[in-house]
Formats: sequence, structure tokens, C-alpha cells
Amino acid sequence: MMDIYLKLNEMGIELPKPTAKAGIYKRTVCFADRLVYVSGTGPASDMPTGKLGKELTVEQGMEAARSCALNILANLHDELGNLNRIKRFVKLLVFVASNEDFFDQPQVGNGASSLLCEVFGSDCGVATRSAIGVPVLPGNIPVEIEALLELKDE
Amino acid sequence: MMDIYLKLNEMGIELPKPTAKAGIYKRTVCFADRLVYVSGTGPASDMPTGKLGKELTVEQGMEAARSCALNILANLHDELGNLNRIKRFVKLLVFVASNEDFFDQPQVGNGASSLLCEVFGSDCGVATRSAIGVPVLPGNIPVEIEALLELKDE
Amino acid sequence: MMDIYLKLNEMGIELPKPTAKAGIYKRTVCFADRLVYVSGTGPASDMPTGKLGKELTVEQGMEAARSCALNILANLHDELGNLNRIKRFVKLLVFVASNEDFFDQPQVGNGASSLLCEVFGSDCGVATRSAIGVPVLPGNIPVEIEALLELKDE
Repeated sequence: MMDIYLKLNEMGIELPKPTAKAGIYKRTVCFADRLVYVSGTGPASDMPTGKLGKELTVEQGMEAARSCALNILANLHDELGNLNRIKRFVKLLVFVASNEDFFDQPQVGNGASSLLCEVFGSDCGVATRSAIGVPVLPGNIPVEIEALLELKDE
Repeated sequence: MMDIYLKLNEMGIELPKPTAKAGIYKRTVCFADRLVYVSGTGPASDMPTGKLGKELTVEQGMEAARSCALNILANLHDELGNLNRIKRFVKLLVFVASNEDFFDQPQVGNGASSLLCEVFGSDCGVATRSAIGVPVLPGNIPVEIEALLELKDE
Repeated sequence: MMDIYLKLNEMGIELPKPTAKAGIYKRTVCFADRLVYVSGTGPASDMPTGKLGKELTVEQGMEAARSCALNILANLHDELGNLNRIKRFVKLLVFVASNEDFFDQPQVGNGASSLLCEVFGSDCGVATRSAIGVPVLPGNIPVEIEALLELKDE
């Protein structure tokens, strides 16, 4: 795996600032020597709010999911110190605020998964995943993603 | 624990084929030496779609959950190579597409849990679980289940 | 970290009885040497049911979340034998039965997180978290919480 920061640079991606916290939780917790859980993370605060299939299109949902993934990387960079410590993404849980007739949660989730795949490669960046519909998310954001990762042995 | 394939045979169960993927994810990921996450997995594609408490009865929901569990076993068989490597099911997260007045998500989840209990025994096959209502799932399926497992030491 | 039972006593908290099970699952499972998953756990059975933003206020939701956390501690006490074995809370997943215009799931979740923070301290008691809206939960309860914990080395 090439250096993650070189890769991000090559892709023209500048990491956003770590997200603000909206409650009593930690953005990340390292546990069991080399696992990391990342809290449910929303998209950039200036992105449109609302539901898929109502206020937002699939394309907007994918953009929101991609933004969630970038915020997850920003928080991991801030708390781990170095994104090159990541061995693999194990699991993503993708919550998609959905109108009752919106069935394309996986496509929305791909907005995050395709970014992680491109940055970390398909072996490490593609995780198991559930992408489900929910009626509403905090602050009316359209997508929220939590992640489980494994770090390299030190 | 008896041989899982003998047990399945005794129960008259033939594992389905591994499921097709509907997005950028892996069906299973092994991590931290002996843990496995299984992606959110739906029922057989020829089963009825819709919501519990609206288009589907509790019994149909339990059948769908059982089918999810069989698909999980099929994917684990395909990716682990041998279901006898499984030490225990640790956690199931059961998403049930639910009308607002449907409160029996646990009974629906039992459709999966009772199958795993019968195949693997109550010590290994019965996991922690959350069974929650969601407004809608990918492709309008009624139930989706993700799983965390522990493998035996090799 | 001070003795957890002294701390609970100091806070005037008496742990409730372990919760009854409403399906085929375990309340807790220990795995991978020192991790514990706790099943989705509801509030005390005599608390009000219904949705946030409809039948229940944010304050009632926070009380319900706090009650979920107490039930989680009661189940952990019953199954681990000693709450002092807990090293840290790793992850909470907070399901909040929500009307479509209720956006304060994190504040509801804080009802649980603030209790765990006070009992275990901010290093150990504050976990990663997702707090999401769902349309309906088992038995029409307003909040359900599942938890992942790490135990101390023995």
C-alpha cells in the first residue's frame, strides 16, 4: 500500500478539519490492541439536509456519504496521528435517511466505499457493510456512517 | 459440537449459493486473528418484499429472517471454507422493515436465531442481538441481518 | 478508577434486576479474550412507551436512555460477576424511536452516556457512539441501546 497522504494528494483530496462533537462520546476509541471504532459521522455541515427519495437525489446522497468518509479519515488522522497505521477497514454501518419508497441505500453507501477503496485499495479499503434506511438522523443529515478498523501491528 | 455439515444434512438443509453483492463491500472480513464480520445479508431473492405489519405477517418475517441466516451460512461456507471453524456467534443485528405499529421485531429475529441455535447449539449459536424497526431496506426486502463471529483457535 | 459499587452507592444508584429476555439471544457474550457485547437493551418496563417528538419529550427520552444504561449495568453485573472488571466502554449504538421531525437523537443518547461517564469516568465511560432515529422499537419502547466493552487483563 502506498503512502496514504501521497495517495490523497494524488487524488486532489485535502482532508477536512476533525468534526465537532454533538454529544457525550469520543470520535474514535482504540481497543483490543489494534482495533478502532469510529463514531457515527455525518457529512460536511454545509451540505444539504433531508431525506433520500424526498429532498435529496441518489447523487446527492452519494456525495454526502463520500463526505462522511472524508470526515472519518479526518478524525482518524487527528486521533491516530498517521493514517498509514490503518491495516484495513473491517465494517461500515451506513444509515441513510430514507423516504419509505427509497430502496437504493447500497448505492448511497457506495459514495463512501468507493472513496475508501480508491484511497486504501480494494483489499484494505473495502469492508463488510450494512446500508439501511432510517426515518431521520441527528440534525436532519441525510447520511451517517460508523466504522470499525484494524491497525497494523506496531 | 457435532460436524456442522452432518447437522445441516440431518435437518434437511441444503445451503443456498453465496449471495450476489449489491455494492462496494465484502461479504465477510476476517480480522483480529479470529473474528469475522458478515455484511448485512437479505433473504432469498424470490421471497416476498415489503414491510412487517403492512405487506407481511410475522410468520413471513420469521421465514425471511431464517433465509437471511441461511444466506449468512452460505457466505461463511464460501469464504471460510469450513463452517466447523466457527467457535460462536457473538452478535446479530437484525433490521426489520416495519410499519409504525409493528412491535414484534424480536419474534421476527427469532426466525434467524432459532436456526442458528439448532445448527450450532445454544452455547455457540445463540448470540447477543438487537432487533430493530427500520422504515425501509435495500430493494424493499423485509429483513436484513449482519453478524459478528469468533473462530476457533487454529 | 474507584470501586464501581462504591461509586454507584455514592451516586445513590441501586442497580435494577437483570432484564427479562424477549427472544432467542444472550444478554451478553464475552469473546476474543476480553471483549463483551451487550444485546440491545430497553428501559425499565414501567417507563412510558412511544416516540420522541410524538408521545415523548427529549427529557423523557433522556430518562429512558439513562434507564437503558442502568439495565446494561445490571446485566453486566449479573453476567460478569463484577463491574470492576470493565476497562472501558468501546461503543454504544443508540436507537431512538423518532417522529420524522425529531432531530435530537444525540441529546437523548446523552442520558445514557452521562450516566456511564459519571460512574466510570470520562476515559473509560465515554465510548464511540451512533445515535440514530428508527420508526419503531420492540414493544413500542422509545430507546434501545447496545454496547461493546473491553475488560481489564486478568
